[in-house]
Amino acid sequence: MPLAEKALIARIRRQVSRSAAVRIGIGDDCAVLRIPVGHEALVTTDFSLEGIHFRRDWHSPESVGHRCLARGLSDIAAMGGQPIATFISLALPRGTPQRWIDGFSRGLLALAKKWSITLAGGDTAESPAGILADVVVLGSAPKGKAILRSGARPGDFIYVTGKLGGSAATLHRLMKNPRSKLALRDFPSHFFPEPRLEVGRILREKNLATSMIDLSDGLSTDLSHICDESSAGAEISAEAIPLAAIGRPATKVKLDSALHGGEDYELLFTASHRKKIPSQIDGIPITRIGRITGNKKIVLLNKGRASELKPRGWEHFTR
Amino acid sequence: MPLAEKALIARIRRQVSRSAAVRIGIGDDCAVLRIPVGHEALVTTDFSLEGIHFRRDWHSPESVGHRCLARGLSDIAAMGGQPIATFISLALPRGTPQRWIDGFSRGLLALAKKWSITLAGGDTAESPAGILADVVVLGSAPKGKAILRSGARPGDFIYVTGKLGGSAATLHRLMKNPRSKLALRDFPSHFFPEPRLEVGRILREKNLATSMIDLSDGLSTDLSHICDESSAGAEISAEAIPLAAIGRPATKVKLDSALHGGEDYELLFTASHRKKIPSQIDGIPITRIGRITGNKKIVLLNKGRASELKPRGWEHFTR
Repeated sequence: MPLAEKALIARIRRQVSRSAAVRIGIGDDCAVLRIPVGHEALVTTDFSLEGIHFRRDWHSPESVGHRCLARGLSDIAAMGGQPIATFISLALPRGTPQRWIDGFSRGLLALAKKWSITLAGGDTAESPAGILADVVVLGSAPKGKAILRSGARPGDFIYVTGKLGGSAATLHRLMKNPRSKLALRDFPSHFFPEPRLEVGRILREKNLATSMIDLSDGLSTDLSHICDESSAGAEISAEAIPLAAIGRPATKVKLDSALHGGEDYELLFTASHRKKIPSQIDGIPITRIGRITGNKKIVLLNKGRASELKPRGWEHFTR
Repeated sequence: MPLAEKALIARIRRQVSRSAAVRIGIGDDCAVLRIPVGHEALVTTDFSLEGIHFRRDWHSPESVGHRCLARGLSDIAAMGGQPIATFISLALPRGTPQRWIDGFSRGLLALAKKWSITLAGGDTAESPAGILADVVVLGSAPKGKAILRSGARPGDFIYVTGKLGGSAATLHRLMKNPRSKLALRDFPSHFFPEPRLEVGRILREKNLATSMIDLSDGLSTDLSHICDESSAGAEISAEAIPLAAIGRPATKVKLDSALHGGEDYELLFTASHRKKIPSQIDGIPITRIGRITGNKKIVLLNKGRASELKPRGWEHFTR
């Protein structure tokens, strides 16, 4: 094991807070964890690869660490679950600066601390090219209560949390001017997205949502996943979609960023039209953007015109 | 998502067998799994990187798929646990042949089937360089019964399953003659190692082992992990170490391969000297190789001479 890896593991082992749920963390063949009685386990895993999901000249190490973990926490949020622990597999090219590793750990552990989860294990290796991180998040939800993608029914209304398109619009700005140095804190939806764990939990506890997914690939793609898994269609209104504002002074993003841009990590959910959905949950605005239909197509209504909305999946910046 | 990835996911989704423990597998934000009542969850995660852990000219895709999963299953075995599900994050360079992907899936799914576990999720991405796989295995063990590394006590005897050094000796043969084409089935300990899940389970059920680890990094290193976590030392006898035989005709490996070579995926465990340990468990030979001491050093006895055995951690073939 190269020295940088050993130092990383030692550092992480010192810094991680232990919780009662994690009986054995780093330092054995497996982590040993307690799932709350009456709960099912939730598991999600996400790659974050240098050159595909982040660039060292655009993303600070703190942002990379934060985003790696935010992706997994957002998947737990989309089930209405609670996170318990995370596991990081990290492959570093020879000569990765210690400063980078420290910043990455700081970003990741700060978010872990915010949600009271333990870094309970992982793996390290030498990378043949670029920094590679695979992040697993383990969580739980009461038996049978996790909110699935497959529960949407024709007539349900469609909602999103927060504002959309901010992350993709930030990326487009970087792609246009690859050498620009953005003030990261003015573009939080891209550099420090907040997983909507509280909103997800409340929707599950109050039995409000019939289906849910997080907006990681973009509204058009993620809504198509809901429709596919629920054997349904949807009709959404362009005017209703809440557009993010980014930068300073803040400027509103274009509709296309909100329709097709990924990595906002907001929640997309459906609810019976008979349920009253609050306009805010946990301080996050909730916006109705359309309804589920029975005809297996996704239709976008824009200024009185209807057109079919095709999933234009999130393409990362190297494609 | 590139076509190759989509095809892979579709193929895997068709091929995986579902089990009652996996309520929701591939196709939602998280997998939803049931941990048996009264059990704790076990989680392990392992990277397998092209050029570090395998080479496409040496390892068939079936072998790579098998070995990826065997590593995680072996960690579950080392806790005395039972596996439930696996998750694969796979990053493929553009243009990875469909034949390779099919072979990889075959190798992995055959081993998954053998142990009745479900491929319940994962992630796919385009790799900037080489094939990258991160494999998570989720398992369980009865509450408080997982066998840890930290339970060895001075006076305990030290045992290993199977024969050691076969995997490393195979690798040395390939490194000496990089273009040689080995008959993979004559070198199973390297190309198709068998995780010792049954042995681990029986040791746990019969309450035989005080500590356990799997031999992934090599005896000298893995024994040092047991000693570190147990705040103890050890004394082992070179003559007692069961040496593997590889190839056809089979030839015995050198002591060094058995002492320091990794990736045998046998089990190393300790047991009270008062416990009777069978000479075979589940058809696998069990060999006593030494005893735990109180002085925090590892001593190798060889032909009447005692020398300190330093951990010479498993170095992969690119280092």
